[in-house]
Amino acid sequence: MTGTRGRLVALEGIDGCGKSTQALILAARLDAVSTFEPGATPLGAALRHLLLGRDGAPVAVRAEALMMAADRAQHVADVIAPALDAGHWVVTDRYSTSTLAYQGFGRGLDQGELEAMVGWATGGLRPDLTVLFDLPVSVAAARRSGAGVDRMEAEGLAFQQRVADGYLTLAAEGRDPWLVVDATEPVESVAAAVWEAVEVLAGPGGIR
Amino acid sequence: MTGTRGRLVALEGIDGCGKSTQALILAARLDAVSTFEPGATPLGAALRHLLLGRDGAPVAVRAEALMMAADRAQHVADVIAPALDAGHWVVTDRYSTSTLAYQGFGRGLDQGELEAMVGWATGGLRPDLTVLFDLPVSVAAARRSGAGVDRMEAEGLAFQQRVADGYLTLAAEGRDPWLVVDATEPVESVAAAVWEAVEVLAGPGGIR
Repeated sequence: MTGTRGRLVALEGIDGCGKSTQALILAARLDAVSTFEPGATPLGAALRHLLLGRDGAPVAVRAEALMMAADRAQHVADVIAPALDAGHWVVTDRYSTSTLAYQGFGRGLDQGELEAMVGWATGGLRPDLTVLFDLPVSVAAARRSGAGVDRMEAEGLAFQQRVADGYLTLAAEGRDPWLVVDATEPVESVAAAVWEAVEVLAGPGGIR
Repeated sequence: MTGTRGRLVALEGIDGCGKSTQALILAARLDAVSTFEPGATPLGAALRHLLLGRDGAPVAVRAEALMMAADRAQHVADVIAPALDAGHWVVTDRYSTSTLAYQGFGRGLDQGELEAMVGWATGGLRPDLTVLFDLPVSVAAARRSGAGVDRMEAEGLAFQQRVADGYLTLAAEGRDPWLVVDATEPVESVAAAVWEAVEVLAGPGGIR
């Protein structure tokens, strides 16, 4: 550790896009803290169960967004911020953009209002790089078949399509550094594209 | 029912101030929907357990505020708004001001930011009347003694004092209609003061 602050890389996309596999590859290569949302803290795990369990109580749209943000606030406080402060790279499978894509484009909540709420939840902590794994909704659905279906996945293809389109819109707006990767490519090619962007982010000093 | 919209009365104060008793008296007299926060919906009950249980996972300050707001969003969507739309009066034991008092003055979160977040959670639904039951912290603590102590109550007297002072500050700012009642008075006197304010709120047409 050099005393410098670590970097935060967020991996985003619809379920089945391959980001969890890419998170493992990238975190191993970076020797990074590998984490995810929702559910990486004990509180978050309880919230995840309430949010994604298919046998759970009804969840209103704003309550869903607020609970996702609560999970994130705990995640930042207990996992992400301490790791960054200690100089580690952090790779997270989902972060704030998921809320904008799912609760914003998917559920129809106002983007500006959501962004303000999520920004407050995280204390303004934004990723140094957000990677979007872009994959047609039909391909992602086929990749997921056989796996258990959570409440978000059960929303159907039209919902997934709004989320996927929303991700591309958010990337095109590009307020943070974004990389959009064609996730139909082989795993190794996708990983290489991600690594190239991370090296650019690291700058001339390199990863360490 | 006359087709007119119902009214929302929020009862506020520190634990032990007597508002739950007053909520029962007022709701019976008004034939109102009587409800409470946190925990009046199935989702809210699960959130309440996470928020107030003393054996639970650690909860970061912003996560706590966001979960209180999620409980409220569900409460408004499933209980309060439908009852008001149907023309009923609604009496709620705690509402948005609790978040400003506990997570704002108690925990030290910024009031303006909290107010924006809570306003978003409720879709801007504010009480027609907020009643604050003002009681010295030491008296409230004595009244509570023997009852189980939840996580908020376990914060100690200094915390309760900040919350109590915060309530008075919020009442003095008075953006909504407020009634501050001296809760050291006998139950019947307190109930009479509340009723008088409710009759004023109802106006010349009366309660129905």
